[in-house]
Amino acid sequence: MRGEIISVGTELLLGQIVDTNARYLSEQLAACGVSVHWQVTVGDNLERVTQAFRTAMDRAELVIASGGLGPTSDDLTRQALACALGCKLVHSEEAWHQLQRFFLQRDRTPSEHDRRQALIVPGARILPNLRGTAPGLQVEGPAGHRIFLLPGPPNELIPMFEGQVLPSLAHNGMVILSRYVRMVGIPEAKLSERLDDLFASDNPTLAPYASSGELYVRITVRTEHVPSGVEELDKMEQRVSQRLAPYVYGRDQDTLEMVVGQLLREGRKTLSVAESCTGGRLASRLTGIAGSSDFFLLGIVAYSDESKRRDLGVSDALLAREGAVSADVARAMADGVRALAKSDYGVGITGIAGPTGGSLEKPVGLVYVAVAGGGGEVKEYRLTGDRGTIQERAAQQALVQLWQLLRDKEKNG
Amino acid sequence: MRGEIISVGTELLLGQIVDTNARYLSEQLAACGVSVHWQVTVGDNLERVTQAFRTAMDRAELVIASGGLGPTSDDLTRQALACALGCKLVHSEEAWHQLQRFFLQRDRTPSEHDRRQALIVPGARILPNLRGTAPGLQVEGPAGHRIFLLPGPPNELIPMFEGQVLPSLAHNGMVILSRYVRMVGIPEAKLSERLDDLFASDNPTLAPYASSGELYVRITVRTEHVPSGVEELDKMEQRVSQRLAPYVYGRDQDTLEMVVGQLLREGRKTLSVAESCTGGRLASRLTGIAGSSDFFLLGIVAYSDESKRRDLGVSDALLAREGAVSADVARAMADGVRALAKSDYGVGITGIAGPTGGSLEKPVGLVYVAVAGGGGEVKEYRLTGDRGTIQERAAQQALVQLWQLLRDKEKNG
Repeated sequence: MRGEIISVGTELLLGQIVDTNARYLSEQLAACGVSVHWQVTVGDNLERVTQAFRTAMDRAELVIASGGLGPTSDDLTRQALACALGCKLVHSEEAWHQLQRFFLQRDRTPSEHDRRQALIVPGARILPNLRGTAPGLQVEGPAGHRIFLLPGPPNELIPMFEGQVLPSLAHNGMVILSRYVRMVGIPEAKLSERLDDLFASDNPTLAPYASSGELYVRITVRTEHVPSGVEELDKMEQRVSQRLAPYVYGRDQDTLEMVVGQLLREGRKTLSVAESCTGGRLASRLTGIAGSSDFFLLGIVAYSDESKRRDLGVSDALLAREGAVSADVARAMADGVRALAKSDYGVGITGIAGPTGGSLEKPVGLVYVAVAGGGGEVKEYRLTGDRGTIQERAAQQALVQLWQLLRDKEKNG
Repeated sequence: MRGEIISVGTELLLGQIVDTNARYLSEQLAACGVSVHWQVTVGDNLERVTQAFRTAMDRAELVIASGGLGPTSDDLTRQALACALGCKLVHSEEAWHQLQRFFLQRDRTPSEHDRRQALIVPGARILPNLRGTAPGLQVEGPAGHRIFLLPGPPNELIPMFEGQVLPSLAHNGMVILSRYVRMVGIPEAKLSERLDDLFASDNPTLAPYASSGELYVRITVRTEHVPSGVEELDKMEQRVSQRLAPYVYGRDQDTLEMVVGQLLREGRKTLSVAESCTGGRLASRLTGIAGSSDFFLLGIVAYSDESKRRDLGVSDALLAREGAVSADVARAMADGVRALAKSDYGVGITGIAGPTGGSLEKPVGLVYVAVAGGGGEVKEYRLTGDRGTIQERAAQQALVQLWQLLRDKEKNG
């Protein structure tokens, strides 16, 4: 079954709000095996909303529109659907009773404006709204189309969708299952090269994505039989993982910090971090994990030279000779925080996040990350982006180094 | 001028990511007086992306597509536009040189796959990408249409749009100007009450928004004459600010940490922070500001009792008597880090971020924030949400306390 989502609202076209309904509905429909080929956003304009319904009925069997069901004169969705179907709206006593009841429960009385919300397309099924005034509608289109009109506010749309739309969509035979394989440290082009033949696969399909310093591959399978679909996913995941073994750190909703935390916990090891240019971002990511107090002992944001000396024991001589942004200082910071916290591992990060503070030899984006303990190393990075991006990427590289070290440790016993 | 926005990517239709680009572009176009009547989202399918371009050229003069410019075989946007225009892609030496230079600067070599990104619609203007590999394209359509192809990642799209698209769009007669007035510490209902009559205003219009522990009001004016539009904005901003004076901390792109940093800098004061449950989030926000080393001296993420004792000098007796999550320990942490760093102000945060670790007397969400120095106080909060939300809200409350203290100091000389 093909689906189309129509979001109605001028505020969306003005960029005043983000359309989270379209995302929510897409996700839900994908999970029921409906292929959404188009999402369309249109303003509060009768002619254009009508056009959107006509086009959607040409190319999809299931049409879900959200927004434009309220009491004001720019709530036009009902009327536009009637235009597209060539009929006129009629007053529904059933909808009107529901509306009056909703108001009564709140000690209010519906106004004349509110009566608009009791207008329906003839023959429509009324979907009661438990959280607001505007009822939803389910309408049958010309060729057996299923058309749903849902209210715009997510707190009204979601319960209405889950309670009254979803049950009629489940069991279409086909379901879509997907899995993510998550990687770090691999350039996008290399990933494409290694998986090129697999990208041609039709079912399961494979698609690569990049986001904030990581790459992931999504494997999607369409199946009528869930267990065999899962088996297909497993097989394809294995093929991807074999070809890209050194880069794969997790799957589905795993994050790099979760995996690092898990490895530390399993090995009963502890960690402390000393950050300069990342200013607490690494500590934040690690302490974002529930139960991180099992392995995370201490974080120091040593933003000044004085703090590097006093709190981390970096020597004056070293700071003078190499400068605060140097491989040796990163190492001394990692050693210093590790000794102070008596942790198994220590991380030291120093660099220039910008926008100022760079020089010819030490430009903005130059970052050193050291891991102390267990044979950890110091690495130099030349990162790009604005201040926030450089800070995030530096914290990410520290997690990559930690992950590689802990994984190799585990592998080698 | 009518505009249309096309977002390309199957991941959008599957609901895996929210389309923030469409919102960003809509907002920007509205601000230049371009009327966006349609936003269309389509998957990585050649036929459908081609169809989207054809339809868009029928009903708009300005078409902006984002996504699908990368090196993999499902990056089809360039090819789809060529199909819609009835031409074939050609290799561009200019684009190829830019790509090679981008790789060279990162000590990498482009692969054969990367060459795809140097394919352009004949006659297209190449928009250099400073943050990624795929260049953007500006193409002239059949009837003088202006068509822009931009990369999908927002950190590439935004600078490309602002640097290379926006300048060519300004001056369309009518412009929309807006301003944000940013507030903290005010309940949404109180804001609505105080501004009720202003919300009825037609031009300028006022709209309230809530996001991550803050409220803001957006004032929007449509005008043909920029200076008088700005004057209208100024007047309305003044009315809003007068009515909500104790809550307004900034305007437009100001953030609370920027304003706190500015107050510290102006007063030549310094700050250090000791965090337990927020795990570095407060330090991260403060060090996210360029030049924060002027006022930020030290951050300590004291995650264990031992670290609170050893690194912050919180006494054993106090920890035993009150427990780590208590007003007195928050105060001792603030005093401790302030003394260690010799800063003017110190912040201490301790609490239970969850999901475990709560009890009847000390439930998940209980947080104490202390500010030491300048008459700062300890406050207790009962925050709700998941772990990440509680951590963020606690860091936000610390900034609110700091801001209120610094602002009052400044006011009272």
